[in-house]
Amino acid sequence: MASIFTKIINGEIPCHKVAETDDFLAFLDINPNAWGHTLCIPKKEVDRLFDLDEDTYNGLMSFSRKVALAIEKVVSCNRVGVAVVGLEVPHAHVHLIPIDSMTDMDFKNNKARSQKEFAALASEIASQF
Amino acid sequence: MASIFTKIINGEIPCHKVAETDDFLAFLDINPNAWGHTLCIPKKEVDRLFDLDEDTYNGLMSFSRKVALAIEKVVSCNRVGVAVVGLEVPHAHVHLIPIDSMTDMDFKNNKARSQKEFAALASEIASQF
Repeated sequence: MASIFTKIINGEIPCHKVAETDDFLAFLDINPNAWGHTLCIPKKEVDRLFDLDEDTYNGLMSFSRKVALAIEKVVSCNRVGVAVVGLEVPHAHVHLIPIDSMTDMDFKNNKARSQKEFAALASEIASQF
Repeated sequence: MASIFTKIINGEIPCHKVAETDDFLAFLDINPNAWGHTLCIPKKEVDRLFDLDEDTYNGLMSFSRKVALAIEKVVSCNRVGVAVVGLEVPHAHVHLIPIDSMTDMDFKNNKARSQKEFAALASEIASQF
């Protein structure tokens, strides 16, 4: 069965897209740990990050860097943190999380705002990518 | 002032090394979230991951992948998780954490063992790198 992320890639589930290339997609996490929390995924559906082939892994990390630099231009924060856990959705994904303190990395937070605010933020980050 | 990691690189502070190249170093975290928790750092001292120049960033992520694959060969786990936070030590570092559950990512854990066990684990991972 296609992962929820593959459904997002295929447009079956909507997302607030911030960047896209032939091989990768970045979109806002709808349950953000901190405002600006973004997910970067390969379009190829592979569960574990370190099971990605070397080229796809390197491409994903390089894509994530460009997305992080765009986030930093838009979202006020000390820095963009990174997390890859992946125990819930079996499709490798890099969390980029604007942080000011350790608690901003906490997956128990939920800093969601209105759909309109998500859309505006996605568009602003996209313009910096 | 040199960061604690630069002191480790220079041999002024000991570490349980698992891998080293001209530009990067990996060693066991002495306050591990989970057993096998490893830090990968660039020898160049730069505070924030996304302030690293593109080549050093890409090299660090590629080095971290090789270290993670070596860890997976030695430490039983569902997968190796990744975290980059960096609010405590101003020298970019990638946490590689063998995880079976979300709580293994928790920086409040401390799964330290004896120096002898650290040394044996470092040597075992190094042999797979």
